[in-house]
Amino acid sequence: MRPSLLVVGSLAFDTLETPSGIAKDELGGSATYFSHSASHLAPKVRLVGVVGKDFPKRHIEEFRERSIDTAGIQVVPAGKTFRWHGRYRTDMSNAETVSVELNVFGKFAPQIPASFRKSPFVFLANGSPTTQRTVLDQVEKPVFVLADTMNLWIETARKDLLELIHRVDGLILNNTELLQLSGESNVIAGARWALAQGPRVVVIKKGEHGSMLFVDGEIVALPAYPLEHITDPTGAGDSFAGGFMGHLTRCGGTSLADMKRALVYGTVIASFTCEDFGLRRLFSLTDADIERRVAEFAKIVSVDVKPRRRAKAAAGR
Amino acid sequence: MRPSLLVVGSLAFDTLETPSGIAKDELGGSATYFSHSASHLAPKVRLVGVVGKDFPKRHIEEFRERSIDTAGIQVVPAGKTFRWHGRYRTDMSNAETVSVELNVFGKFAPQIPASFRKSPFVFLANGSPTTQRTVLDQVEKPVFVLADTMNLWIETARKDLLELIHRVDGLILNNTELLQLSGESNVIAGARWALAQGPRVVVIKKGEHGSMLFVDGEIVALPAYPLEHITDPTGAGDSFAGGFMGHLTRCGGTSLADMKRALVYGTVIASFTCEDFGLRRLFSLTDADIERRVAEFAKIVSVDVKPRRRAKAAAGR
Repeated sequence: MRPSLLVVGSLAFDTLETPSGIAKDELGGSATYFSHSASHLAPKVRLVGVVGKDFPKRHIEEFRERSIDTAGIQVVPAGKTFRWHGRYRTDMSNAETVSVELNVFGKFAPQIPASFRKSPFVFLANGSPTTQRTVLDQVEKPVFVLADTMNLWIETARKDLLELIHRVDGLILNNTELLQLSGESNVIAGARWALAQGPRVVVIKKGEHGSMLFVDGEIVALPAYPLEHITDPTGAGDSFAGGFMGHLTRCGGTSLADMKRALVYGTVIASFTCEDFGLRRLFSLTDADIERRVAEFAKIVSVDVKPRRRAKAAAGR
Repeated sequence: MRPSLLVVGSLAFDTLETPSGIAKDELGGSATYFSHSASHLAPKVRLVGVVGKDFPKRHIEEFRERSIDTAGIQVVPAGKTFRWHGRYRTDMSNAETVSVELNVFGKFAPQIPASFRKSPFVFLANGSPTTQRTVLDQVEKPVFVLADTMNLWIETARKDLLELIHRVDGLILNNTELLQLSGESNVIAGARWALAQGPRVVVIKKGEHGSMLFVDGEIVALPAYPLEHITDPTGAGDSFAGGFMGHLTRCGGTSLADMKRALVYGTVIASFTCEDFGLRRLFSLTDADIERRVAEFAKIVSVDVKPRRRAKAAAGR
């Protein structure tokens, strides 16, 4: 059996305003960014989401071209697809929401197709903890479930969120959300708090400042891939998660070594996403692009600390 | 000749308020943090600064115990030592200045002792670009001069600062200062701008988010050493510079490989400084502490990306 990766989340149309320009009605949504990113690594990606009658067939075709199984996309003929309009000013790390129309996503009740229920790897994209829980209730003995969340749920559904966190293997969130959730003022203390709630793994996204991974008592910290120009950071977090889970699915393991490599793939794929509006860069992305940047990134962070150099110098004093 | 490292900067008394408590009249100052940090690595550190009659002999003794040459410390009998009172609230990355008394440092005119003028490595700690320039005018053919600066000089002495930057080998500053200086909104673009002004090396300090190094067309990016509790971040930047320059001095080189290792030593020594008020942790620091944390840090950032793993997985599709 080829290992498969299930993602449940949003499909959307975004209007994106950044210092680089404006893009209207771009394909977006957490599950969209995640699945296209993961498809470069995971042999099989299974997508569950909901769209309205306005969702063009060509986007369904685009998923299929990347071997993303679209059997879990519900189409609500009487409804409209989720829409978001966001704006970034000079600080590309924070989007201002100009408008949001939940539309069919507002009543999203994920139905996991029978053929998807035995997926060993599962990503619960950002959504209400109650909705995320219904996915857990439908899947059968997954190997590794990673859940994303956001400030809205920390503020409005804290109890449900804590129950969810207790049931998943990994939690992924950004550094400010982690501080908010934990009540700590330091991300490492925040991560320890989160680990104490149940999950084996905590992944912290810090945008341009990189990421951290806490697993099995170990800490991994990586910078972001240095980008001189960011066109649109929308979807970078979901692309990061897609690269991370895509690599784990591909290698079928969740050891510390697997997760470290997964973090690199997440970092690299997220960097590509930032290079153009929406999913545009992901659509032109090749495996060679990814591998080239992974090698470049490995060089950027490589440290070769030779203790003997120290010993020599000391001897010469 | 054992390679030596000259530092010119401030010696001070600090009153420090952090969420961990208050420390009054702590030994402080850029040159103090720098020289004590560097003394763990560089065979010879030479300190140039100015103090008042209130500066206790024991601090001079403390420098000497670390083989820091104090021949360049001017004592102004009629004056008082520089004093700073800073406060950190929950955000440990920004200090609020409660009060500052420049005292003798306000008229600091560095006199480099004849015995110090042939130092191959030179650090111009934060100070007015005009004062920093007078040091350059007194040293003889240094191998590598690194200059620090701050927002005050960017705002009030931009022209002098640009002239200084043009004459040094390396510029070290924090990310917000770099954006301010360059007028860019992205640190990588900012670093490229800075390199175009003349220096071969730009080091960007990002506090809890780590550091970046631009040298010879290469980029190095490292996270900070993850600290769960920060007692007092004062002096972390100067400790970082001390570890960086200390390592370069010790190995006598300025290759990319030397600088990468230097960045790790800077990162590690800065992390120790944050663990207690003022210089307290530096005073109890051993070489074994440093080497242990360097090895731990190398593990935290190590990435082992095996391209063949990718090839295997692809073949199995």
